[in-house]
This record gives sequence, structure tokens and C-alpha cells, in this order.
Amino acid sequence: MADWQEITGGITAPRGYQAAGITAGLKASGLPDLALIWSDVEAIAAGVFTTSQVKAACVDYCRQRLQAKHSARAILCNAGQANASTGMQGVRDTEETAEILARELNISPESILLASTGVIGQRIKMDALRSGIPKVVAALSETGSDAAAGAIITTDLVIKSIALETTIGDRPVRIGGISKGSGMIHPNMATMLAFVTCDAAVSSHLWQQMLTRAADQSFNAITVDGDTSTNDSLIALANGQSRTPAITEMGPEAEKLEAMLTAVCQHLAKAIARDGEGATCLIEVQVTGAYDQVSARQIAKTIAGSSLVKSAIFGRDPNWGRIAAAAGRASVNFEQDNLQIKLGDFLLLENGQPVPFDRAAASAYLKQTAADSSLSPDLIASNNSNDLSGDRRMIKSQRVDNPVIIAVNIGNGHGYGKAWGCDLSYDYVKINAEYTT
Amino acid sequence: MADWQEITGGITAPRGYQAAGITAGLKASGLPDLALIWSDVEAIAAGVFTTSQVKAACVDYCRQRLQAKHSARAILCNAGQANASTGMQGVRDTEETAEILARELNISPESILLASTGVIGQRIKMDALRSGIPKVVAALSETGSDAAAGAIITTDLVIKSIALETTIGDRPVRIGGISKGSGMIHPNMATMLAFVTCDAAVSSHLWQQMLTRAADQSFNAITVDGDTSTNDSLIALANGQSRTPAITEMGPEAEKLEAMLTAVCQHLAKAIARDGEGATCLIEVQVTGAYDQVSARQIAKTIAGSSLVKSAIFGRDPNWGRIAAAAGRASVNFEQDNLQIKLGDFLLLENGQPVPFDRAAASAYLKQTAADSSLSPDLIASNNSNDLSGDRRMIKSQRVDNPVIIAVNIGNGHGYGKAWGCDLSYDYVKINAEYTT
Repeated sequence: MADWQEITGGITAPRGYQAAGITAGLKASGLPDLALIWSDVEAIAAGVFTTSQVKAACVDYCRQRLQAKHSARAILCNAGQANASTGMQGVRDTEETAEILARELNISPESILLASTGVIGQRIKMDALRSGIPKVVAALSETGSDAAAGAIITTDLVIKSIALETTIGDRPVRIGGISKGSGMIHPNMATMLAFVTCDAAVSSHLWQQMLTRAADQSFNAITVDGDTSTNDSLIALANGQSRTPAITEMGPEAEKLEAMLTAVCQHLAKAIARDGEGATCLIEVQVTGAYDQVSARQIAKTIAGSSLVKSAIFGRDPNWGRIAAAAGRASVNFEQDNLQIKLGDFLLLENGQPVPFDRAAASAYLKQTAADSSLSPDLIASNNSNDLSGDRRMIKSQRVDNPVIIAVNIGNGHGYGKAWGCDLSYDYVKINAEYTT
Repeated sequence: MADWQEITGGITAPRGYQAAGITAGLKASGLPDLALIWSDVEAIAAGVFTTSQVKAACVDYCRQRLQAKHSARAILCNAGQANASTGMQGVRDTEETAEILARELNISPESILLASTGVIGQRIKMDALRSGIPKVVAALSETGSDAAAGAIITTDLVIKSIALETTIGDRPVRIGGISKGSGMIHPNMATMLAFVTCDAAVSSHLWQQMLTRAADQSFNAITVDGDTSTNDSLIALANGQSRTPAITEMGPEAEKLEAMLTAVCQHLAKAIARDGEGATCLIEVQVTGAYDQVSARQIAKTIAGSSLVKSAIFGRDPNWGRIAAAAGRASVNFEQDNLQIKLGDFLLLENGQPVPFDRAAASAYLKQTAADSSLSPDLIASNNSNDLSGDRRMIKSQRVDNPVIIAVNIGNGHGYGKAWGCDLSYDYVKINAEYTT
């Protein structure tokens, strides 16, 4: 089906990109905390940002930059302080950061985009940042994707990275991406960030449209605990270095590029859901038979976000009643007599009524799927240990190709949609309650 | 402030009502499971029901009855089976139930309303119900409120009951209520039910309006885990037996009655939130400065429903960042520079920026408030024990007058609103995950 192949290299797989990640001393842990993504030439830039009314200075900064100019050369991301709820001082800090980086890179500050993740209400440690910027510029490399991916994470257990390649006009075109996020997370380190690089030539208007649609089918279709961060940012660059013909309107080549962009975003989004705090498995909810795709996704997301469904999956309980109840309250009209629910291959509900099924086997399906996709306990322990080195974290995403599948049909419509989430475990409460300041 | 006083008697405190609760053998536990509420005369009846697309047969039944006729004599409620996702057989079961009860009470089936709570997808055990109905009719008593309250609960730790009295035209008027619900609960026993009795004389149109508004400020303003049940029902009767002048339009007396109705509903709703699965405290979120009340309630409910806020409160962590983030994503526009957040008496955020506060003292406030409102461990243990007798459960609601207060101001508007929730503990996950079937 898919008209592309997975390749290595993450965000430096596409031509004309370099990346770096270093320890600048922003995180108390001493782990890598400053990442830079660099395009050899000015790249078309698009972005999707948090819809929260409480948002970080870097989010306002990026929105303004991208409104003024639809291109960029560099993205700088710090981890440790969110620079949200920091008032005018936070705004001045973003401006100073862009100016320092611009001088170091010898480009205009207008070609720089910024992202932050960390504790809300804390300014970026500007002294550490000022001395870190020359170092991260010096560390730029065509193999720097994993270093960058490791420097943007906070409570994540693993780094999240992907690169895909297809052909347009008989020439290779590549899209790479990295992301961070593991649910609503440690003391306020709630942010979901994703950075995508592409070497196709595409018009800015079209690239933004593609990214917005891709985000709807990926980052906007995952839920760990329903919270939205002050700093959520998805930024995508397209620098044309594949030397393929420019794509300026929708058509077969644009569709091919958008499909691959969507696949990259979906991988990164699923990796975030799988890494949800305390999660033991990835859950994919597939909804069909809806009036339209928006309705279908709404139902899928409501099911994936239901605490009751999530805790039932953690308990390996094929509890269709909770799935039906979540579907019913999604604010989408349907006839309950049409409702069908499947868990993996097990048909649980047909025509709105329960059907006999092998409960033990359905529970075993949940157990097996979670076991197949789990990190080894050793790995988790090492990642959680206090003497964690940066290298230890350089583990690629958990498997996201084998989720628990909940399939729901609500009627005869042509609308379909998916959403992803994770189960709700004791560890979620532990992580979020026991970090008492 | 309040123009009423609390009295004893629950739903049988108003004149002209009787109630009963018996063990009919519907619950596997052998606990009381069949409740009947009876008005000596035909009473004006109003109802508010689940908005879920997947709903129990009794919900459709009540909606149809109340559309055809705005009055009733009796409400029968069974616990054990939800009679949801039971198709046409479920519909036939409601009709047969009403007919049997009507014969026993010697009234028309059209004067009977029905409610169910229990496992979704299970029919009511009709044999047990048929033999239980004469018994519950025989048990009707003017002091039967607590027995009825005990027969409608499922995973609740305590029964929930209240009665208030005021004067209209120099004569006493009373409203009583019972409710059940403890969050999203045991295997599908998700339902929130509340039954209210009143002895005022009020027109049916006005009574329904009052109840709808009261529900918005009470049952629609609580959240335990965001789920909505297939069976949620609030039914209120007004039988005129206070012999006070009929209230047919809004005015001072109607306002007085509505305020007391709202207070009854708020008490019952808060008792449900306090009894949330695994909860250790009640949380009240107060939002002021909004454009209108709907916006204010929306922000309040988003904060009260945030898993991050809930787990921070369980961790006794004065984590204003999570409160600010939840306020920001409530889909209500406001200027973040106006945001103010207080926790109890502690000012945490002013003009959108953190202010210094005594973190240890704020944490102590959370600890103390939870301790003050907690059930004794012995009581919880006895209520959870397997050899639970009906009597042991006959414990009145936990205190709901001393919640953890989160006060948020978002600007200069006149809109204000409240919402109630509870903290998120390990026990929530335990209760909802470990009941593996």
C-alpha cells in the first residue's frame, strides 16, 4: 500500500539538513537540553501550535514570524524551562535568543524559529543558553538527528524519530521527523513537540495546508490524558534540496508527498501515545460508518481518551460496555441499534447488543499485544535511573506497529477515522502525584 | 445567606411521600437493590436524562412518559442491571415492569417512572423483579428514605441524602433528595441517579425549567472522570401537599423555591463527586471574571476534570502550572496576562505570572482539607468488606462542606461559575482496572 520506504537518519535524512543536540546546563539533571535544526538553504516553513489561551513566549514568537515570512533556516529548542507564564521578560528572552543565534549563524533573526519545553512559569536560564548557543552551532552535523531528538525530551523514556523516502519525478524525496512528549507529564513538562524536515520543493501555502491536515490525522488524534500544553508546537521545513519539480497545487505528486508527511506525523504521534506516562500499550481506535471524518475522529478520540476504557485495557478486561458508553457520549448522533464493537478479532457487540465471545481469549489478546510492544523492564529501569547518561536514552521508539485495536462501526456512513491513546496504569498516578515539590 | 434550613427525612421529608428499599435478589451481592418512591397524590414530574447516544431502555421510557404527561405517582429504581444495550427485549421489560407495578399500586402505568443502574448489556432479572415488586410496595413508609437511598447505590461507599425546608406564604415547603454514583465505577456501573421530592405546588412547565437550570449548576458541573453513563437520570416530583399557593411564573417565591432546589441538587452532586472512586477529597473550582456563566462553568469543569490537576491534588502539590494549563485549554478566550489563581487562601498566580508563596503551607492546606473531610479508614474497610450488610452502608454522605478550593479569575467579566470534582488516586486505577472479568 504505502508508496514509500523507511530509511535511517531522522531529520537529517532529507538533503541539506544538519542537526545537533548538546548539554547546555538548562536541565537540572545534566542531560542534553539544547537542540538545533539547520537547513543549508532557506526552507519553506509551516507550523501548528497549541490552541491554549495560556501559551509560551516562543509560541507567540513563532506565530508572528510565520505570519510575516513563510520560510526559515533554523529551529532552536530548549528543554528544562517552558518560558510560559513569564510575561514580558519571556518575550524579551525569545528575542534575545533569536538575535544571539542569528549572529552565530550569520543569518537574519527572522529566519529563526524557537521552541521550549519544561517547567511552566520558569524563564530559560539565559546565561547557560548564551554560552550553549555557540556550542550547539559548532556541533551541527549531517548525522545529528538522534542527538537533537535526545535533547528535546523531558520525561520521555525513549527518543522518537522516523524518516521515509519516496520518489517524485523519478528522484528521491525524503521526510524526517523527531518528536517528544509522554503525556501530561512531570511537573508541568507537558509539552508535545515535533519537528519535520523535507527536501521536496513545495509552495508555502500548500505546505501549510498539508501540515494542518496531517496534524489533524496524527497529533490531534492522540490523547494521553486530555490535557493540552502551553508549548505544543509542530514545525515543518521543506527546503527543495531534492531538486525535484516544485509542487504548487494538489495533484498526484502533492498527494504522494502529503501521504508521506501524514505517515511521518502519525508515527511520531503514535510514539508519543505509546510513551504515555505509565502506559503499558498503545491503543488504536478505528471508527467507521460515520457521517464524515470529523465525526468519526471525534468518537475515536473520545474512546481513546476515556479513563474507564484506558483502565479496562490496563486490566486486560474486554469491557465493551465502557467502549459503548464512551462512543455514546462523543456528541455525535448515531443509532445505538447500529453499533458494532470489535476488540482485535473479537466481535463483542453487534446491532447494539452483546454477542457471546471467548472472554479469556480476548483478555489474552490484550495481554499478548501489550507484551509484544513493551520495552524490556531492564531498559525502563535504566532510563529511570538517576545516573542516566545521555547515551542510555538513545533508544529508538517502542514498537508502534502492533497496537491494541478497538474497531467501532456506528452505521452506514462513509466517514472513518482513527485515534491513538494508551492505557491508564498505577504508574500514571504515581508519576503525576508523587512529584510533590 | 441561605433562606432555608436542613431537616431530616430525605425524600420522605416533604409531605405526602413514602419510600422503600428492599433486597429483591437483583444484585449478586445480596445487598438492597430495589427502591420505590411514592406520592400520595399525582405529582408534577420533571426529568433530566443522559445525553448519550447509547442509552438504557428506562431512559427512553421516561422521556416518552414525560412528553405525554407531566406528572407521576411513583418512581421504581433497580440496581444490578442497567438494561442498556438490551434492544427490544429491554423495551418490553420496562413496559412489563410498569404494568406489574401499576397493578400492585392500583394506578395507571402512565403514572410510573423507571430508572436502572448496573451492568450494561444485562437485562433486569425479571423473575426476581416480579416477586420483588409486591414486597417493595408493602415496605413503603413515611420514613423509608434511607432504605430507598441504600437500594439505588452500586459501588458507592455511602448513601447520599438531603432535605431542606423554607417557607412560602408563611407555610413550610420542603425538598428532599437522594442520589447515587461514585464516578465511572465498577464494571459499567457508571450511572448517576438522583430523585427529588417537593411538596410545593408548581406548574409543570416552570418545574421542568427550574430542574434544568438546577442540573446545570449541580449534576452537570461535577466530573469524576469525564464519562457519561447510559442511564444517568434526575427525576423531580412536586406534589403540592404543602398546601402553599401555586407557583406558576417566576417571581420571589419561585426564585426561593428554585434556589432551594438548586441547593438540594448541589448537595447531592457534591456528594457524588466526593464519593468518586478512590477519591480522598472533594475539589471545588470557582471561576470569576468570565464573559458569562457558561464560559465560567466550562473553565471550572475543565480544571476539575484535568487528570493532571487531580493527581497533583492527590499528591498535595500546589501545582498552579497545571491549573493554568487546564484553564487555557477550556476553549474559552481570555487574556493570559489577566489570569489569577488561588488555592485556598494562597495566591499562586497574579497577572499571568507566578508569585512567591509558602509552598509547604499550601501543601499542608491540601493535606489538612483532605484529612478533615475523609471517612474513617475503619468505615471504608467495613463498607468494602465482602460480608457487607445493608445496615453498614447506611452512613450519611461524607462532609461536602469543606472542599479544596481552587479559585480562578480570568478577567473583568461578570460571569462566574463553579464545578466540583475529586482527586485521582491509585485506588481509582485499582478499582477500574482490577475488576477483570
